[in-house]
Amino acid sequence: MGRFTADPSHPRYHSLLSRHKLEVAANRGLLADSAMIAHGRGEAFDYLLGEVTTANAMAATKNALAHLLAAKRPIITINGNTAALAGKELMQIAEALNCPVEINIFYRTKERISGLMDYLTAIKHEHNLNTTILGENPDGKIPNLEGPRANCCVDGILTSDVIMVPLEDGDRCEALTEMGKTVIVVDLNPMSRSAKMASITIVDEISRVANNMIQIIKEGNYPEIDINFTNTKNLQQSINIIASQYK
Amino acid sequence: MGRFTADPSHPRYHSLLSRHKLEVAANRGLLADSAMIAHGRGEAFDYLLGEVTTANAMAATKNALAHLLAAKRPIITINGNTAALAGKELMQIAEALNCPVEINIFYRTKERISGLMDYLTAIKHEHNLNTTILGENPDGKIPNLEGPRANCCVDGILTSDVIMVPLEDGDRCEALTEMGKTVIVVDLNPMSRSAKMASITIVDEISRVANNMIQIIKEGNYPEIDINFTNTKNLQQSINIIASQYK
Repeated sequence: MGRFTADPSHPRYHSLLSRHKLEVAANRGLLADSAMIAHGRGEAFDYLLGEVTTANAMAATKNALAHLLAAKRPIITINGNTAALAGKELMQIAEALNCPVEINIFYRTKERISGLMDYLTAIKHEHNLNTTILGENPDGKIPNLEGPRANCCVDGILTSDVIMVPLEDGDRCEALTEMGKTVIVVDLNPMSRSAKMASITIVDEISRVANNMIQIIKEGNYPEIDINFTNTKNLQQSINIIASQYK
Repeated sequence: MGRFTADPSHPRYHSLLSRHKLEVAANRGLLADSAMIAHGRGEAFDYLLGEVTTANAMAATKNALAHLLAAKRPIITINGNTAALAGKELMQIAEALNCPVEINIFYRTKERISGLMDYLTAIKHEHNLNTTILGENPDGKIPNLEGPRANCCVDGILTSDVIMVPLEDGDRCEALTEMGKTVIVVDLNPMSRSAKMASITIVDEISRVANNMIQIIKEGNYPEIDINFTNTKNLQQSINIIASQYK
């Protein structure tokens, strides 16, 4: 895997850069076999959304950040694709929120967990972060989920009140919502089960979401919780934007 | 990579089987890095199409087969994803058409070309086919394309009159069309450049297309060329079906 050398003026620069990041992560063994396929599905929906942060996605991002800021025990979870695309940025957000991150992967293997732990720890040191990285030694279980995908940390996911789970599986999203948590999902498909199950769905690309949150935090203009936010309306707005491509 | 053991009654059986076939091919080194991502994009569009052969896709399939049957020098090209998903079926169709297949991959490496040649040759022997497999020793160039992606065989792609290029890149599709050939593309995205550039675009999943063609050939009910077929109308019909999902 060589260095990424595409010209930033290339119309598909961001898309190519994301692919490159995933290919690097895949070569390091950080991704499940299905990770590239999932990314491709996301690419298709992002293309239909115009590859930009839409107005409702920005509103959902602000509302999500407001909930994370107001939380007693916020947490951000990181899987393989998330680590590859926005690992550094999500750890910077966690640092600003003074909360941990937790590695939670769907197809859990010891090798990938420790690979991700090494990967995130290197980022932590390189960028002088203090973020606690949980997930290597899970000591809790998410109720109503079977097998290794139920594993989580008691001091992390299990006892969190507001949880940001980018690129999450539908079943786990549902189980977390059923625990009474405020579940924030990032998903480019506004019709996915995860998108429908979440408390707040940000229909946007994860690295754009993370950079938007960092920008808001940097400006110090902290958003308030939007008491009028309804996720179904938010999802419908993204659906309308996609539908407008088909005319 | 273990055996595929999903239950055929599983609602996502065909989707899981396709993924499995691609993962096997990837582990054999037959696919480019971007192959899984491309498959994922296709999955998203197939989901929006309802994962079935639509009426206009069947009409396009019949018209494509009619053109292949009427051709003087028909050819079917096969790349990594196509080989994994429908290699056997496309070689069976080529046998029925008494035409060769040609391996043509976008990111051409000696290893992948010879890997695909071995893979298709094994299928040929296993199923007692006589299909000629071209592509290992390209001796021609597609005009207006640069680099290895221009390479092709004089007795194959270069002098063909009707060419079926499933899952083709937009640039190459355009170059082939500019050569005056009848270009048949299979693409799940009705708005892709390939879909727009082709003479006939079958907006359907490649293994469904191949099985539909085999079924038509088996029944001996050979279709006639549809002189009223217009590809833009055909594409619009697929777009309308996708749009109807967003209501």
